[in-house]
Amino acid sequence: MSESIESIASDVASGIISLREVGDANGESETAYLRRNVLEKVVDQDLTGIGDIPFDGKFHAENVIGGVSIPVGVVGPLPIHSDLGSRSVYVPLATTEGSLVASVGRGVKVIRESGGVKVRVWRDSMTRAPLFVATGVLEALRFVDWVEVHIDDLRKVVDGTTKYGHLLRILPFTAGNNVWLRVEMSTGDAMGMNMVTLACDSLIEYLERNYVGVRCAAVSGNLCTDKKESATNTLLGRGKAVSGEVLVPKDVLFRLTRTSAELVADLNARKNLLGSGIASSSKMNAHFANIVAAMFIATGQDPAQVVESSSGYTWVENRSGDLYMSITMPCLEVGVIGGGTQLRAQHEALGLIGAWPDSKDVGRGPRVLAETICAATLAGELNVLCALAAGRFGEAHRALGR
Amino acid sequence: MSESIESIASDVASGIISLREVGDANGESETAYLRRNVLEKVVDQDLTGIGDIPFDGKFHAENVIGGVSIPVGVVGPLPIHSDLGSRSVYVPLATTEGSLVASVGRGVKVIRESGGVKVRVWRDSMTRAPLFVATGVLEALRFVDWVEVHIDDLRKVVDGTTKYGHLLRILPFTAGNNVWLRVEMSTGDAMGMNMVTLACDSLIEYLERNYVGVRCAAVSGNLCTDKKESATNTLLGRGKAVSGEVLVPKDVLFRLTRTSAELVADLNARKNLLGSGIASSSKMNAHFANIVAAMFIATGQDPAQVVESSSGYTWVENRSGDLYMSITMPCLEVGVIGGGTQLRAQHEALGLIGAWPDSKDVGRGPRVLAETICAATLAGELNVLCALAAGRFGEAHRALGR
Amino acid sequence: MSESIESIASDVASGIISLREVGDANGESETAYLRRNVLEKVVDQDLTGIGDIPFDGKFHAENVIGGVSIPVGVVGPLPIHSDLGSRSVYVPLATTEGSLVASVGRGVKVIRESGGVKVRVWRDSMTRAPLFVATGVLEALRFVDWVEVHIDDLRKVVDGTTKYGHLLRILPFTAGNNVWLRVEMSTGDAMGMNMVTLACDSLIEYLERNYVGVRCAAVSGNLCTDKKESATNTLLGRGKAVSGEVLVPKDVLFRLTRTSAELVADLNARKNLLGSGIASSSKMNAHFANIVAAMFIATGQDPAQVVESSSGYTWVENRSGDLYMSITMPCLEVGVIGGGTQLRAQHEALGLIGAWPDSKDVGRGPRVLAETICAATLAGELNVLCALAAGRFGEAHRALGR
Amino acid sequence: MSESIESIASDVASGIISLREVGDANGESETAYLRRNVLEKVVDQDLTGIGDIPFDGKFHAENVIGGVSIPVGVVGPLPIHSDLGSRSVYVPLATTEGSLVASVGRGVKVIRESGGVKVRVWRDSMTRAPLFVATGVLEALRFVDWVEVHIDDLRKVVDGTTKYGHLLRILPFTAGNNVWLRVEMSTGDAMGMNMVTLACDSLIEYLERNYVGVRCAAVSGNLCTDKKESATNTLLGRGKAVSGEVLVPKDVLFRLTRTSAELVADLNARKNLLGSGIASSSKMNAHFANIVAAMFIATGQDPAQVVESSSGYTWVENRSGDLYMSITMPCLEVGVIGGGTQLRAQHEALGLIGAWPDSKDVGRGPRVLAETICAATLAGELNVLCALAAGRFGEAHRALGR
Repeated sequence: MSESIESIASDVASGIISLREVGDANGESETAYLRRNVLEKVVDQDLTGIGDIPFDGKFHAENVIGGVSIPVGVVGPLPIHSDLGSRSVYVPLATTEGSLVASVGRGVKVIRESGGVKVRVWRDSMTRAPLFVATGVLEALRFVDWVEVHIDDLRKVVDGTTKYGHLLRILPFTAGNNVWLRVEMSTGDAMGMNMVTLACDSLIEYLERNYVGVRCAAVSGNLCTDKKESATNTLLGRGKAVSGEVLVPKDVLFRLTRTSAELVADLNARKNLLGSGIASSSKMNAHFANIVAAMFIATGQDPAQVVESSSGYTWVENRSGDLYMSITMPCLEVGVIGGGTQLRAQHEALGLIGAWPDSKDVGRGPRVLAETICAATLAGELNVLCALAAGRFGEAHRALGR
Repeated sequence: MSESIESIASDVASGIISLREVGDANGESETAYLRRNVLEKVVDQDLTGIGDIPFDGKFHAENVIGGVSIPVGVVGPLPIHSDLGSRSVYVPLATTEGSLVASVGRGVKVIRESGGVKVRVWRDSMTRAPLFVATGVLEALRFVDWVEVHIDDLRKVVDGTTKYGHLLRILPFTAGNNVWLRVEMSTGDAMGMNMVTLACDSLIEYLERNYVGVRCAAVSGNLCTDKKESATNTLLGRGKAVSGEVLVPKDVLFRLTRTSAELVADLNARKNLLGSGIASSSKMNAHFANIVAAMFIATGQDPAQVVESSSGYTWVENRSGDLYMSITMPCLEVGVIGGGTQLRAQHEALGLIGAWPDSKDVGRGPRVLAETICAATLAGELNVLCALAAGRFGEAHRALGR
Repeated sequence: MSESIESIASDVASGIISLREVGDANGESETAYLRRNVLEKVVDQDLTGIGDIPFDGKFHAENVIGGVSIPVGVVGPLPIHSDLGSRSVYVPLATTEGSLVASVGRGVKVIRESGGVKVRVWRDSMTRAPLFVATGVLEALRFVDWVEVHIDDLRKVVDGTTKYGHLLRILPFTAGNNVWLRVEMSTGDAMGMNMVTLACDSLIEYLERNYVGVRCAAVSGNLCTDKKESATNTLLGRGKAVSGEVLVPKDVLFRLTRTSAELVADLNARKNLLGSGIASSSKMNAHFANIVAAMFIATGQDPAQVVESSSGYTWVENRSGDLYMSITMPCLEVGVIGGGTQLRAQHEALGLIGAWPDSKDVGRGPRVLAETICAATLAGELNVLCALAAGRFGEAHRALGR
Repeated sequence: MSESIESIASDVASGIISLREVGDANGESETAYLRRNVLEKVVDQDLTGIGDIPFDGKFHAENVIGGVSIPVGVVGPLPIHSDLGSRSVYVPLATTEGSLVASVGRGVKVIRESGGVKVRVWRDSMTRAPLFVATGVLEALRFVDWVEVHIDDLRKVVDGTTKYGHLLRILPFTAGNNVWLRVEMSTGDAMGMNMVTLACDSLIEYLERNYVGVRCAAVSGNLCTDKKESATNTLLGRGKAVSGEVLVPKDVLFRLTRTSAELVADLNARKNLLGSGIASSSKMNAHFANIVAAMFIATGQDPAQVVESSSGYTWVENRSGDLYMSITMPCLEVGVIGGGTQLRAQHEALGLIGAWPDSKDVGRGPRVLAETICAATLAGELNVLCALAAGRFGEAHRALGR
């Protein structure tokens, strides 16, 4: 077969066929194997490391040549109390940052000795905002009025596209002759962006058939807002809004972190509130993104959505020496079916935290996942603020990082 | 051994020992194996999928139980022209989003038939901003003055901490009695955040020994700004600033995308400029984050830094029917040594695009990587804007998504 | 009396009495006269210019010594078409910027020769957001739930505080243990901030009597958002949302401005959309603030509210050579009773544009005012963009400005 | 003459002549008188209130019909300590908000009993950012390089346009093929925007003559950023950056405000830092805009620049019961010559605070003005935060407002 690979590679190198056309007739794994071998010849480089990463044949992707692996470390048990019950969880973190697991682990220990974290999911929807263009301002506003009047018809259109979700709201925005319809849906066990996009496709078709005077410029007009942070998301929500909190007794705090509630509260105000404000960053936290990214990758979420899912606020109070810390994540976008959640290891990671889809309780899985991410993020935030306040931040990186 | 595992699991479950304490004496791989087996008993769940992902023993991480794999697809060849020379590259994308590779691939094809993309890295530094607290406003400003006067001494301190980077600038910010010193360094082949953090540790020690009247509240005061988007980063830079452009001839555009330069330019203004503005998002692009995330994971970058690395602007002009598109990424944070770049598959992915570290040309690798990410992001942006303008966005997701 | 003034001045200078205590028993005008004379002695400076500005005795203010005058220029007639009817208006602009009236006047002329401007007020409310603090996250969310359940009771409380406005909505926001209740009211002929503040006072009293478990930290928690721009205001509204548009025929455009729709549309995208985005400014316009400030001062509005009232978006299209321009002002805060509208000249300025309060059509006056400000702002924006595109901006300032 | 007025009015009403053409041959005051009389006939409304406001004939404006007056109240004496010396000032506030003077006055009293406010101006420049367009990315970057290489030549061009200011820096920004050159100048006693605009006109002419390959799209590209808040301004400066602080002893605080440092610090963190962050407002303060607007109008500044001049941060610490408060205003745009400062009453108001231009110490006047605005703003901020913390905010409005 190596002769055949070389001849295919020669055809690819000379542009006769594209890499995508290599072996399309075979199964996924064999095609990936063949494609990787061809590419090795074309670029004259060993790619067996990529090729050796187990390829999950069930998963459809394009032009696959193998994979990369991300080490998964575990922290826990992390006691979580929510309206879904109390539980103690081992949390998987997929990361190549050399000190993250240890950092979150120290926060988990502080939380554990403080009786656990309380969390609550308090808003839940997924959004897509198609952009329409009218002749002028009056025509744009007339279209908005029409949408509001015909909301029941539009609801039928949207709800007819899926049995797993339904329309929550259509929120219109307008600027000049432009109209954005921000469509909010419940999306069951899915993160739901594709579900809402498909619903919007049908909605657009319906509107174009039934309303004369606007054209749809795009199914997404950036008021969704997907894979970009935005005040629209933090104020109005996208995905889950979830808050968590812990009260660390004075003695636990000092014993485990060598700092005080006074110092941590002072640091939070200067760094996370004032510092982010002066930087003109909408993210008033120290490093939500680290934990969100590690859990997103471990559990098969879309890592590009870390951008907005890491939005949020850390709030700290000195309560007579005890440390009160809460974090608020207004737009955490997660699901337990679809996308990367179908891959075997990622599916196991979801199972580890009890977030598998449950046909008898649709929507529970993503809420469990959101709660767990919030709890772990609180642990990470707690540890970094305490370490910074105690002056040990650089040393931790020296010992464990690069 | 299974009995032993069960007894360890029992000890972990009852809190006698922690998971972290399991088998620390063994090698990394064996410890991970043992730890995973113990965890399976503790939580009563199969984790062999995680355990089967090849564990890269050279890499130090904490509490590892295995890994997750992310499929790597390839697009190309993508012709890139820069001051580092012209080259044609196969670009690795690690993603579980079912249509991303195909989407970027279509953009690559358009670019290829348009003669390729021109890119330029035009700014390069890594930053960390320690936060200092003075008694009052006058004392804070006096400290800033002192730092400016003693910049040569401080440069020696910073440059003495590493042989791979040097101080570029210390930019002070002040609010009331708070002072942030934004330390900018060149960082050679590394992304450099740890390098700058360690340099700041030494800088802080020096300042505390040589200047009386301020205390350091934290080595990071959120004006860095790390893992959070910020105007500080987009205006002043963090990592590489890189721009890329392509001019798509009218006939190529129509043949491959079934749309026109007029429609795409119109859409870009409404969606990426006006839409992002109304959403109050600082990111004036359609989906930089998708490509940045996929390439970051493929090449071992820090996925939490996708947050700010996906910042940037898409600009489109209708040039008599030809489509001019440029993208600007003001703060792309990449390196080719350290962190996840040490893992075997990720290292191969860096090699695939020609971005390995070169001791004879330090700094070239990260620039090649930044250029390639910019070129691939341009391809992805080009395809999505054309597809949206042509109305085929939803259909692409229907066919390939989920 | 001059002896008496000198002796009072001596007492003030030596701190025996304060300036505020000077002549409180007399009428407003005489007190101001006396106070100004005393101050002249204390600081040894002539203040007769301030003293000569007619003092409007009906208006209650504190410690008044006279006034400053701002010249009022007039542009027009400006043809305005709205759902309140078509009218042609002379617009008063109070300004000390030497070229503003001429600049807006040129835009008015272009609009007039294009058939006038179409405007529409499409949202209307005033807001105040008291800030409450609960023990923790769960208690904060419970409070939010309670508010939503008891909305009818709260409506009675709010509506009971005034006969001119009523509650539209209470929108809760939460972060950790903090809750903001953004109270939206219709406010009749008043701008309404005081009306909403007083309603919130009663609301807070009611909540504190009827709900145990939160304390009110402040009647305003900055999510109102008053006298500060914010995405909350632009997305959700404060005051009037109003849009306006004009279509300038190609020949009118060239004859009066020596530029083209193509150039103006190009400039708007680069400057107002991309430029503001890169600057990290939420205001995607050239100079709304100039016209808003001049009309606010002329008509007795609160000039500090220019900050958010000048928010908005300019959108330009090249329609086969004709210039389409629309502006959108999402949070224009205006009223025709209370505050500075009671002063005689300001009251006349309101009358000049037909915006006097009408007890038979409450709310019409502020809408007329909002429409007129939008129309004049469109004229100013049109002229500056055309002048910049034609390269005459600097010259205009040279001839008329300082 | 009334017959003549009626015939002119008839001509204006029927469009034969424009209002601007009325009586241009006469002196300013008489023309204004005539024009106002004509307008009264045209619109059939009495405008004698506007006409009675003394018209300052020296001031050139267009189409003037009279003026509006704004009452000026005075607070003080306010003790200010700066590197320009210690002084005690009566501060003029021009406002129609019925409780502002009293509010600031209470803050002044607290400051006075605390020994006064310390202020410092720590940055000073005015900016304008012309926008250039190149063919592509490489051409744009080449232009930036050329500008940096030829900075000495450009300095001569800029400095040759005025004897009152000089070039401080040209800071380039780029996005795709667009380049903004942010020109920073010192501007002596003037606020300086016109000075920088005229310098930029010459700079543009020079660049267009000496550099082939770019065109100037506009003398202002919104990165200036004028009359719009922006992170560019707060991070890099525009006008004066000034900070002020006060330490209020515990007993003074309680006696005068009935609140505590603990409550005020807590409120500042929740409202001004967290609240503004959640609102997505860049202004982390309670009401800087009120005082800035009142002093801008009193002293003849440009009220449209209140938008960015009211940017800034309030920082509060509880120091063992004493209240430490500092405010930071990063971009306060003020001058003491030109524009409205030429009007008689406004000129007197400048004199009242000692801010007249001094040919022997150019630049001192605007710094005195900036310091005074900062000090008064601190007083206003102090009072509102204390009043809110003490719960008396609504009551103050009830008693004095409307």
